[in-house]
Amino acid sequence: MGGGARQRRGRVTITEIAREAGVSVPTVSRVVNGRSDVAPGTRARVEDLLHLHGYRWRPPGARVRAALIDLVFDDLDSPWAVEIIRGVEEVAHAGGVGTVVSAIHGRSGDARRWMTNLRARASDGVILVTSVLEPVLHDELRRLGVPLVVVDPAGSPALDAPTVGVTNWAGGMAATEHLVGLGHRRIGFVAGPPRLLCSRARLDGYRAALDRAGIPIDESLIVPGDFYPESGFTGCAALLDLDRPPTALFAASDQMAMGAVEALRRRGLRVPEDMSVVGFDDLPEVRWSAPPLTTVRQPLAEMGKLAVRTVLRLTRGEPLDSPRVELATDLIVRSSTAPPGRGFA
Amino acid sequence: MGGGARQRRGRVTITEIAREAGVSVPTVSRVVNGRSDVAPGTRARVEDLLHLHGYRWRPPGARVRAALIDLVFDDLDSPWAVEIIRGVEEVAHAGGVGTVVSAIHGRSGDARRWMTNLRARASDGVILVTSVLEPVLHDELRRLGVPLVVVDPAGSPALDAPTVGVTNWAGGMAATEHLVGLGHRRIGFVAGPPRLLCSRARLDGYRAALDRAGIPIDESLIVPGDFYPESGFTGCAALLDLDRPPTALFAASDQMAMGAVEALRRRGLRVPEDMSVVGFDDLPEVRWSAPPLTTVRQPLAEMGKLAVRTVLRLTRGEPLDSPRVELATDLIVRSSTAPPGRGFA
Repeated sequence: MGGGARQRRGRVTITEIAREAGVSVPTVSRVVNGRSDVAPGTRARVEDLLHLHGYRWRPPGARVRAALIDLVFDDLDSPWAVEIIRGVEEVAHAGGVGTVVSAIHGRSGDARRWMTNLRARASDGVILVTSVLEPVLHDELRRLGVPLVVVDPAGSPALDAPTVGVTNWAGGMAATEHLVGLGHRRIGFVAGPPRLLCSRARLDGYRAALDRAGIPIDESLIVPGDFYPESGFTGCAALLDLDRPPTALFAASDQMAMGAVEALRRRGLRVPEDMSVVGFDDLPEVRWSAPPLTTVRQPLAEMGKLAVRTVLRLTRGEPLDSPRVELATDLIVRSSTAPPGRGFA
Repeated sequence: MGGGARQRRGRVTITEIAREAGVSVPTVSRVVNGRSDVAPGTRARVEDLLHLHGYRWRPPGARVRAALIDLVFDDLDSPWAVEIIRGVEEVAHAGGVGTVVSAIHGRSGDARRWMTNLRARASDGVILVTSVLEPVLHDELRRLGVPLVVVDPAGSPALDAPTVGVTNWAGGMAATEHLVGLGHRRIGFVAGPPRLLCSRARLDGYRAALDRAGIPIDESLIVPGDFYPESGFTGCAALLDLDRPPTALFAASDQMAMGAVEALRRRGLRVPEDMSVVGFDDLPEVRWSAPPLTTVRQPLAEMGKLAVRTVLRLTRGEPLDSPRVELATDLIVRSSTAPPGRGFA
């Protein structure tokens, strides 16, 4: 059973390979080192033998470690994660940089394991998406000289790292003004997690639009959520249980908007006839939700692209134009919004 | 402007660092090499100076390159990609392995650039998702000794690599039998791209279920699609334009099912009252589509996990139990299916 011997790596010497291939030792060495001065037929024969004997092929450039960046999420359970990955990968791939994707689940143990892995692979930069690192890990990145860029700043604005965000406040205002412009006066709001700055900004945009329209803010129309569909379902149900439910609802994420639409459907209410619904994100699938969702578009892939460009500039020691960038949001009007109907108006 | 000098790496010698820190050269050396026999205060002072002078910190383990696997998609434009990434990342992360995500867009140039990057980062294994590599790239992986595992086999079944798939045929049959069991006799089918084996298997499962129920197959009820929502919309519209439209529809992907639901909504038809709709995938968001979608669940994250375990076994030279594994699909019944209504039955 010669196969067993072939499995063991490095047991066969270069000299034996040379003898078996009928070439000189320096020729084998030239093949191993990826040099071009070897006849193609000879190279193929030697490579086959190296492979056969379990030599792990090391391409010529392998000793110079290739560039890697780490893209870190709290959780990989949202369809918007893939939009950010798509943008990051596109720019990184084109530049020969590998994108290592990780999730740390907001758990200290996972974050520490990630840091250990990051050190071991000597990653060149980190993009952190809507997640918070403990100060000790920030310090460690700084000590390692690994630059950090934060996408969609979630935690303390005092965080000492460049950020790429979107105009959450302006987006929240645009969504609410759209509903006001359609004639709605009682507009519900399903909020995002309060620990995230973007949640605060969207809520403040909602308040600002109502203020500007001279509509008093009714705190009973503001319900908590966590960006996931379940909380949109629950939040919308709570609003429907009010003595005077709203005629329109602005959910601070598309997923919560989808949960809200389902809560309405369960009660036999139609969108937009009985209630208008606006989301936030513009995930690809909400173009195809029933009905297609009016929403505030976040340029997620563009945010990813900009984050890579920023982190690569930092690895090269180049200055940044600005340490904090906010990309514009756009209101996308589809079929889930209309003037208030005969519902509870 | 001392800052300028600090930016330039390696200009300051270990001797100078030692002098500035007020310690001996061997002490600086011990810090640089990550040894433990340095007092914490001294270590911190030396590390700060190293950082200040732009020394790139190399952790002790950095010379031994960390494990990496490459996870390759054709496109990162589908919400099911994130499910696979989630599964792969979870197992890889726990094992200290980094997951490098790439998209090659079915384009030769992108695939070659990816291969160049893969060689440069000396990745340990490759997981290829519903994508096809040119034979020359397969040969190169083999020559590099980098094991390959294919998720959801898309191309030639003769491909010389272990595969992780799902029971697409059984899933197609279960979806169709569910509709037959509800009393449907005219069941439309929106197919996936014919180049993918999984599309063929789902279609064959549909045919087998109809055969078994003694329902003659009407080829006019089978329309082409490409897994994306638009094609579900178009396919469903084509079925509705038939003289005798079906009373139920099985779409070979959830995204096509969502497009079909929207086509029905646009014509004022309701799901499931006017037409039942079944999808395939069980993406997280279809729990929240209006109505929640009956679908065939693919365990996407489980497929990712199994693929990592398989590729890691191969990197260690361990034998596989089986080179081809198919995980079971499950029919998940929600609210988009019901007995045929008064519609066109």
